[in-house]
Order: sequence, then C-alpha cells, then structure tokens
Amino acid sequence: MAKDQELTHEEKLEKVKAMMKDIKIGSLTTIAERGLVSRPMAMQETEFDGDLWFLTFRDTPKIKEITADPRVNVSFSDDDENYVSISGRAEVLEDPEKKKDLWNKAFETIFNTEYDDPNLVLIKVHAHGAEYWESGSKVKAAYQFVANLVGDKEHDLGKNESVNLDQ
Amino acid sequence: MAKDQELTHEEKLEKVKAMMKDIKIGSLTTIAERGLVSRPMAMQETEFDGDLWFLTFRDTPKIKEITADPRVNVSFSDDDENYVSISGRAEVLEDPEKKKDLWNKAFETIFNTEYDDPNLVLIKVHAHGAEYWESGSKVKAAYQFVANLVGDKEHDLGKNESVNLDQ
Repeated sequence: MAKDQELTHEEKLEKVKAMMKDIKIGSLTTIAERGLVSRPMAMQETEFDGDLWFLTFRDTPKIKEITADPRVNVSFSDDDENYVSISGRAEVLEDPEKKKDLWNKAFETIFNTEYDDPNLVLIKVHAHGAEYWESGSKVKAAYQFVANLVGDKEHDLGKNESVNLDQ
Repeated sequence: MAKDQELTHEEKLEKVKAMMKDIKIGSLTTIAERGLVSRPMAMQETEFDGDLWFLTFRDTPKIKEITADPRVNVSFSDDDENYVSISGRAEVLEDPEKKKDLWNKAFETIFNTEYDDPNLVLIKVHAHGAEYWESGSKVKAAYQFVANLVGDKEHDLGKNESVNLDQ
C-alpha cells in the first residue's frame, strides 16, 4: 500500500469522498453550555464538495448550540472501520429550494413532515479540514495509516501530510 | 416498547452500559485551535462506571488539546445503529498501576510498545452526562426514541428525561 504522505491533495480528497459515499449516518458534535455533545445525523445524498448538509427542526438544541458557537465536527465510520473526521463551521439556513433539492422519501419517515415545513431548517457545514483513518478491520492499521488532511494557513501540519479543503 | 421517559435513572444507566458493552471503538472529539476534531479510539475493557479510559502517547495532538481545554465528547455506535453520546471532561494521567490494569495484548499491536512505556499516558474522561438513541436499523426509531440522559444542576433538561451521572 502506498503511504498516504505520497498522495496528492486530489487523491486524498478522492479517498475521503469515497469513504463517505456509502455512509448513511454521521455523527455531528457541537459545543453546548454543558460541554461537547454529539448525535447521529442522516447524511444527504450529495457528493462531498467541501460542504455537508443536514436537515433538522428549528427548535432543536443543536440549532441553539450552532447559533451560539458554529464550530462543529462531523465524523463517519463504515463497517470496515474506515473513519473520517471533518472539522468545520456550521450555519443555519432556511433555503426552500435547497430543502426541496435535498429532500427524499426517507426524510418523510424520519421527520414525519414535508420539505416545505417552515420549522425544518438546513445546517450547512463548511468543512475546512478532514482527517481519515484507513483500516481493514485492524486497529493497528487504523493507527498506523493515519493520514492528516487538515491544513490551513495558520496551522499547517506539514505540507506533505496536509491538505486544505478550501483550496 | 416502553417510552424511555418512564425508565428510572438506574434503568437508563443500565441501558447505556449495555449499549457500550460490546463496542470496541469510540470516537473522541476534542477542541483544537483549528476547530473540533475527532478520532477513533480503542475502548478499554472495563464496565462503564462514569469514567472512560483511553491509552495514547504523550506527544499526540489530543493530549495538547485536552490540556488546553478538557471538554470532550465520546460517542459510540454499534452495528444496530444504537448510539451513545458521552459529554465529559478529560484529564491526562501517568498512573503506572492503572496502565498495567488496563493493558491487554491488543495494545501491544496497536501501540507497538509495552504498558510501562513512559511515553504512554492515560486519558481519563469523567462523564457528566450521556444521551442515547435506540434503533433497530431504522433512522426513524433512532430519531423518535431519543432519550436524553443529560442533566446537571444548572442545565436540567427535565427531570423525567434526564439523569446526572454524577449522582
């Protein structure tokens, strides 16, 4: 297996996209007054382009938390124990067109409402970094093949191992 | 299925313990300078009593992050899409006896060292709240059977639905 340090920015991003492709449930972590809290969230069926979208109700604690502090993490793991961590900033949007675009039949069951419900809002997470852990099923691989995709102007972790999703 | 609001504190805690029992990998989220970051972590084989223990190396970013801000989240999901979120505060310990207690053969493979390696440290997460989502395999159930176990003196979310792990 090629060391991930040898991969290009584009190859690393493709790897993250591929890992996320078949994952249906992500974990969204926010900063609440009582500490860090997370919850399972259904993923939208869109290709990952740097933004993640979630649907939720306006009166949920996570909307209050995001409004107070937009820093979030979204993580995913699949059955093979591949793992992706996305760091980003969340914003709450009420975009009826986007809600319609993202809507599918599964959401009718989850939310027990329709896409034009005014209480339904969008959470848009702008990812500024991603890290992934590849694994067969062994923790050893997950540990040793860690590849750090995160990088930004202030906190570059090393050019060969980092990539900035904003680029 | 009984509504979780009708469960006692003890019954809810037993449910969280049962959900966590067979889970080998948790997700540890910390506050870094660049935002919220998470990573997969091997769980220790101890019964959950309010504290979670992890082993890691002293020179990892998570140790730096926890030292700067001890607020963390640990989440778990199992193959049935049950989900547990633990909010807590982390501290870094160098307790040789506890490292020996927690050590097992799997860690030799993961860390490629022995329990008495001075670079190996313990992360102790003192959980002050837990939330869980029960599911068969349907997102609907995960959404509708949400049970909020979290509560503390300042931010009680309702006596019937919350429980304080510190009690």
